[in-house]
Amino acid sequence: MQPAGSKAAQPAGPAPLRLGIAGLGTVGCGVLTLLERNGPLIAARAGRPLQVTSVSARSRRKKRAADPGPATWHSDPVALARDPEVDVVVELMGGSDGPARALCEAALRAGKPVVTANKALLAERGTALARLSARYGAPLAYEAAVAGGIPIIKALREGLAGNRIRRLYGILNGTCNYILTTMEATGRDFDDVLAEAQRLGYAEADPSFDVDGIDAAHKLAILAALAYGAPVDFASAYVEGIRAVTAADIAMAAELGFRIKLLGLAQLEDGALLQRVHPCLVPRTTPIAHVDGVYNAVVTEGDAVGRTLLEGRGAGAEPTASAVMADIIDIAAGRIAPPLGLPATALAKHRACHMRDHVGCYYVRLQVRDEPGVIADISAILKRCSISIESLLQHGRAPDDARGVPVVMTTHEAREAHMMQALSRMARLPSVLHAPHIIRIEKLTVPEES
Amino acid sequence: MQPAGSKAAQPAGPAPLRLGIAGLGTVGCGVLTLLERNGPLIAARAGRPLQVTSVSARSRRKKRAADPGPATWHSDPVALARDPEVDVVVELMGGSDGPARALCEAALRAGKPVVTANKALLAERGTALARLSARYGAPLAYEAAVAGGIPIIKALREGLAGNRIRRLYGILNGTCNYILTTMEATGRDFDDVLAEAQRLGYAEADPSFDVDGIDAAHKLAILAALAYGAPVDFASAYVEGIRAVTAADIAMAAELGFRIKLLGLAQLEDGALLQRVHPCLVPRTTPIAHVDGVYNAVVTEGDAVGRTLLEGRGAGAEPTASAVMADIIDIAAGRIAPPLGLPATALAKHRACHMRDHVGCYYVRLQVRDEPGVIADISAILKRCSISIESLLQHGRAPDDARGVPVVMTTHEAREAHMMQALSRMARLPSVLHAPHIIRIEKLTVPEES
Repeated sequence: MQPAGSKAAQPAGPAPLRLGIAGLGTVGCGVLTLLERNGPLIAARAGRPLQVTSVSARSRRKKRAADPGPATWHSDPVALARDPEVDVVVELMGGSDGPARALCEAALRAGKPVVTANKALLAERGTALARLSARYGAPLAYEAAVAGGIPIIKALREGLAGNRIRRLYGILNGTCNYILTTMEATGRDFDDVLAEAQRLGYAEADPSFDVDGIDAAHKLAILAALAYGAPVDFASAYVEGIRAVTAADIAMAAELGFRIKLLGLAQLEDGALLQRVHPCLVPRTTPIAHVDGVYNAVVTEGDAVGRTLLEGRGAGAEPTASAVMADIIDIAAGRIAPPLGLPATALAKHRACHMRDHVGCYYVRLQVRDEPGVIADISAILKRCSISIESLLQHGRAPDDARGVPVVMTTHEAREAHMMQALSRMARLPSVLHAPHIIRIEKLTVPEES
Repeated sequence: MQPAGSKAAQPAGPAPLRLGIAGLGTVGCGVLTLLERNGPLIAARAGRPLQVTSVSARSRRKKRAADPGPATWHSDPVALARDPEVDVVVELMGGSDGPARALCEAALRAGKPVVTANKALLAERGTALARLSARYGAPLAYEAAVAGGIPIIKALREGLAGNRIRRLYGILNGTCNYILTTMEATGRDFDDVLAEAQRLGYAEADPSFDVDGIDAAHKLAILAALAYGAPVDFASAYVEGIRAVTAADIAMAAELGFRIKLLGLAQLEDGALLQRVHPCLVPRTTPIAHVDGVYNAVVTEGDAVGRTLLEGRGAGAEPTASAVMADIIDIAAGRIAPPLGLPATALAKHRACHMRDHVGCYYVRLQVRDEPGVIADISAILKRCSISIESLLQHGRAPDDARGVPVVMTTHEAREAHMMQALSRMARLPSVLHAPHIIRIEKLTVPEES
């Protein structure tokens, strides 16, 4: 787009919106780069020019991918919130507490709009921040906090606002999706692929935040609050990462017509909100099964719209900057929404549904002695726990008796509590060599399609 | 979501936003149904209740799927625009001229916001309406005009507003996608599947608007205007439908690793805007290849965000009503954007790129006599037209000489004008039995992925 002759600094035009950016890491530099490159276009869409008047970062001398120009430097981010030359505070430091929290609270209290990419902060303190936003009439926008450049916050808060959300689920962590995709493509195991992802910069030196599912759960808690008009309730989410998924699981899933993805899922079950993050077997025929590598995707099932899927890059300097910029443009143009989609006073807490009450299908992997009666023992346990087997695969014979032979089963719908009971009983069988491992099966059918 | 105690008609709350709905067909009734079912939730998200105070439809007595209740009936839709009890006009009649146009213009001139699902009107008169909207300060919103319930207008206008759009493309017509998907699944030919789609209500009695690509081109012209900050220029779009696609093409494409989809594509090529709708061979590995049946999808490639895909139901009462309701909620909440994303005065017309100047790859199907020298003749023509062959498939021998044998080729990148020249020369070869048929190949790679 080439808007006709709209330069950022025309004297006669509207006054620029003055930005204070705290945090000049990957995303902060991405925002500066984007503003530098697309400045006139952004000004045309925002209805006024944007100008970075203040910045804050730990080190001023560090070599960076972008230059904040003549902006005022604040060593204390909270000072940036109080800077009279700052109209909008852009928080790109990260962390659920400390300086990021102090900055956002100070800005909102000063009546200044806050744009943030900080999912941990939103997941841990989103409701309190939404209340501060309402009290001081200061917008709080966080498109970049979930699924990078995908405009999913705007879609849930505005684009699908006429819908009652039946269920939402998504691939919310690019690191995990990259690892699982690479494991599948190469047949290699988790540790090996993780090490490679770390070398390539797709995984952190301490990868636990990503691979243990916490990052995905942060994002899920934010999406669930928006979708269900509820306070953000990260603490109630069930969280399980991908460390236990093996190359053999992926191969076996493929044989059964599934792929393995780390999903975050939220739905109301009998009026209770279940939020869960765990690896899932998803049918190859479902669109989310084809979201690969560093891409994220969110599926929303609304009572009117049916199933929608939004897919895009879930991280990275420029995809995240794209989302930050969209929030800034909205604020510049005066397009404001309550942070959680509803007035903070109208948020209604749902009872949390415990994972043990969830009903679903299961993939169960066991390592057993290759001897008569094993399957009969396992079947008997499942029967006693009211679980019915859908399929059972046993490949080959045991090469040596000590290692045993893998058995893989899938079940029909069963209550999680019953499955856990069955697993602990199976683990006690002498013929079962390791603790059995489950992966939940999500068929993801949409009611009107079935 | 259950907002705490927000009933639609609380006396102390804000005044209701009064809607006048013109057109009580499928979509109009969908909007009434949705408002009836989710009223309190919609009021909570809109910040005020919505109330249908006036309606207009051709017949008052017709049996309908929803009841407008005690609303005032107007036989003349323009009277609805002037009704002092109407704050927002919702135009759901359709048609690029006549009453729909008169209503929208009258409403905007009266300073009343217009929400419409009318893609033909927007495609033919979108720029003039955007100018009227600006002149009278009356919002014009049309999320429902493109891709049903998918919030793609909002995504392009706001969610991706920081991006320079490199290319966008989509499956924009559910009827065509249903027909192509069914042809592939069943091996049946176009006419047969179209007749079935008509019986099932997925295709109109006169299907030409859909199967000849016009409906998709209307939507593409709207998306292109938004993406490239340009006036809506439907007249410049190249449009070709799906009637010439055969079951054999689909089978052959599958053998080559492709599926056939009707895409609308827009991109700037050397500063000129190319808009085109035609069947495409798309690689099975690309996400849009997996968008099946009545689903629509739009892929946007932005310079910052990279590739995003939005998928959902492209038509139907409730998906479309979902989009209409999102626009109404935005207006109720005061979230307003210029109709084409930029001030109407800033829209910049791009030179139109002619299809003959486009460079792409081609699938070519010929029916030839099964005799020596045919391939040599064809190859010579292609060589003279600067077209290089990538692959050539010839299946079996001719069962009888009169029908000939099919030959399928794919080419490397070639200029459309050269390809057209080659086709007309090939058609004149005595050994070529019918005019050769081409389908364009779109590899759809994203720069940063290659």
